[in-house]
Amino acid sequence: MINQQLLQPESIAIIGGSNDITKPGGKVLKNLLDHHFKGKLYVVNPKETIIQGLECYHDARDLPSIDLGILAIPARLCPESVKVLAETKNTKAFIIFSAGFHEESQEGARLEQEIVETVNKTGGCLIGPNCIGVMTPYHTSVFTTPIPELVPDGVDFISGSGATAVFIMEYAITNGLKFSSVFSVGNSAQIGVEEVLEYLDMHFDPLQSSKIKLLYIESIEKPDKLLKHASSLIRKGCRIAAIKAGTSAAGSRAATSHTGALASSDTAVDALLRKAGIVRCHSRQELATVGGIFTHPPLPGNRMAIITHAGGPAVMLTDALSNNGIEIPPLESPELLSKLYPGSSVANPIDFLATGTATQLAEIIDYCENRFEQIDAMAVIFGSPGLFEVYDVYKVLDEKMRSCRKPIFPILTSIINVKKEIEYFISLG
Amino acid sequence: MINQQLLQPESIAIIGGSNDITKPGGKVLKNLLDHHFKGKLYVVNPKETIIQGLECYHDARDLPSIDLGILAIPARLCPESVKVLAETKNTKAFIIFSAGFHEESQEGARLEQEIVETVNKTGGCLIGPNCIGVMTPYHTSVFTTPIPELVPDGVDFISGSGATAVFIMEYAITNGLKFSSVFSVGNSAQIGVEEVLEYLDMHFDPLQSSKIKLLYIESIEKPDKLLKHASSLIRKGCRIAAIKAGTSAAGSRAATSHTGALASSDTAVDALLRKAGIVRCHSRQELATVGGIFTHPPLPGNRMAIITHAGGPAVMLTDALSNNGIEIPPLESPELLSKLYPGSSVANPIDFLATGTATQLAEIIDYCENRFEQIDAMAVIFGSPGLFEVYDVYKVLDEKMRSCRKPIFPILTSIINVKKEIEYFISLG
Repeated sequence: MINQQLLQPESIAIIGGSNDITKPGGKVLKNLLDHHFKGKLYVVNPKETIIQGLECYHDARDLPSIDLGILAIPARLCPESVKVLAETKNTKAFIIFSAGFHEESQEGARLEQEIVETVNKTGGCLIGPNCIGVMTPYHTSVFTTPIPELVPDGVDFISGSGATAVFIMEYAITNGLKFSSVFSVGNSAQIGVEEVLEYLDMHFDPLQSSKIKLLYIESIEKPDKLLKHASSLIRKGCRIAAIKAGTSAAGSRAATSHTGALASSDTAVDALLRKAGIVRCHSRQELATVGGIFTHPPLPGNRMAIITHAGGPAVMLTDALSNNGIEIPPLESPELLSKLYPGSSVANPIDFLATGTATQLAEIIDYCENRFEQIDAMAVIFGSPGLFEVYDVYKVLDEKMRSCRKPIFPILTSIINVKKEIEYFISLG
Repeated sequence: MINQQLLQPESIAIIGGSNDITKPGGKVLKNLLDHHFKGKLYVVNPKETIIQGLECYHDARDLPSIDLGILAIPARLCPESVKVLAETKNTKAFIIFSAGFHEESQEGARLEQEIVETVNKTGGCLIGPNCIGVMTPYHTSVFTTPIPELVPDGVDFISGSGATAVFIMEYAITNGLKFSSVFSVGNSAQIGVEEVLEYLDMHFDPLQSSKIKLLYIESIEKPDKLLKHASSLIRKGCRIAAIKAGTSAAGSRAATSHTGALASSDTAVDALLRKAGIVRCHSRQELATVGGIFTHPPLPGNRMAIITHAGGPAVMLTDALSNNGIEIPPLESPELLSKLYPGSSVANPIDFLATGTATQLAEIIDYCENRFEQIDAMAVIFGSPGLFEVYDVYKVLDEKMRSCRKPIFPILTSIINVKKEIEYFISLG
């Protein structure tokens, strides 16, 4: 079971730490140093004396007591290291990056089993093997980049595939998402996606815990456990989205070869996720986008105002929303119209034209917030044809998103012309 | 009808040119200068003497003969300027940026009608009003950025909405797409999407013309014309993708207010596009992606090899493809497997692991190209967990895409870790 030593270790030892930051054992140390891990950091490597400025131990037996052991050494050397740490250093948490276990061979499966037995016997927890690691606001024990912003009210992300976790985070970070925790469970030798979810459920704190969970799953080994804890978390106010990959016949063959996942029919998966209340996604972009939408308060109703400075995207969005159960009710206000430039429209979409200003946007949002009772939420589309900067518009948008009762969904269409302004907008939070 | 003066003008006059590059009349001049327009460039502005380094004319009457007139002046002044150019300067092509015509008022509709009559009488062509302009390899007569790379074998792009055209191009450029022409038809006073398509069809040259057309349409005014020329172009070997927005009830209200588009039912649009052989898209990302796929040779069959260095994305892609009619046939080759690192798989997906090298990728692609007869095409997934640079892999990928008979679709998953390498890959073409 996941424990405090994994989530908030006071000491970490990297077995196989290295000066070469293109190697997992070097990169994880660099990540921990770069992100100012506050606890004690130890490195074990028989061939070095100083590693990235830290004194290097030649043998794990020389270490003091250690909370979390990270292994970046060949598979065949792992069981002995785990034994030393678990039995003589009171180590209760392990992350094993190394591959070459049950995903590769019978011999690997035996090594993996041996490690699990040692960890179980000493009451510890094991993430991996064959994973990229774990991140929480307390430590960044992964050998990959990018490192997202880690805050208690970010998103909890559990992934059955390490590289996929990286690609999803890259997309999510670009879209402004922050994380509360990231678990790459790898071979799930002791702890799989289900067990992480169980922990998050059983230790859920309505005031402190993140209310958003994102999952990438290739194999649902314990559907009952998944259903139980996902439903429970959702009853406690959480929102969960998941990709379950490997559900087509060919995809399930691919998943089996990737992580040894068992086949499961697409219909069964759909039914299970639906019953649990999980939003099913089919691509990394979709998962990251749904995660972003979850950061907004839930819609109090299904009536949306679309506010735009460009007609076309508003027409497409109106199609997409109204084809999926969201109403775009007609609006009328000669008073509001008189405050906009000639040619504007307030019929919903509210189009305040390419020349529209930040002041006009603020005015429109105030009308939607306070006057239009038939509106539950707003979507604001604002890009730029590249004539001038639009920082002021994005500043207004950020302020209104904080102050309005009704949820506001920003849609920032210009990924080149407004690149800098979007980065600024994201930096505001 | 579109003419040579619009596509390859030898002289351009900007009526309402300006030193202020945050204004359309200033920005279009800057775009033409920055992109080295080879013909003669004239600027008319009654209040200036030098504009962006060019001598300024105070009155259009003082100009020499002009091929293309670009108007960036208030709507009410446009009819007179068009008259002067068309009747005394032999101007046969016009682009009018200005808004305030039939989309705004009855008076505007009258002005627009007057302009069309003048242009028709003198046998010229008119793009707009209320548009962002036109680009070809010969000139960049738009007041927006970004300017894509313009080459004869790029994509022809026709848009019924200027801002939407910008947002679609931003996405397309980021994904490496090049353009052969861009037409923003605005109010379509004389020339709409259908007329541009007609021109491209009637002047189609199997050796010279672009074979890819992308359309953003809010209103199909002449379904017969669209059907006729789209089908004809497709018979000539072209591939066409289109967004038709404003097909939901609410969306059609939005489109009417945006460009005065008439309502059309979604089913009717679907049937029309299907009959013509046009691939229908529903978002700007989808249109840009389909445009990118069109740059590959057509699939000779439906059997795909998925080559990857990361299991998860390959599982998702296998699901997506095999759920949509593409086969991912099982493969076997102990010989190929022996050239990869332990733990790799060649069962399809071919997974050569996170540690896989450029040499191994080349080897795998050669097997798919020459040995695996049950394979028609390849998808290559390659991102990075951020440990080291992967320029060499992307170089191999580019070389193989050029030399292989079987189409190769690159899927570059790491938008942060491999940002620079992706830019390099795109720069290779």
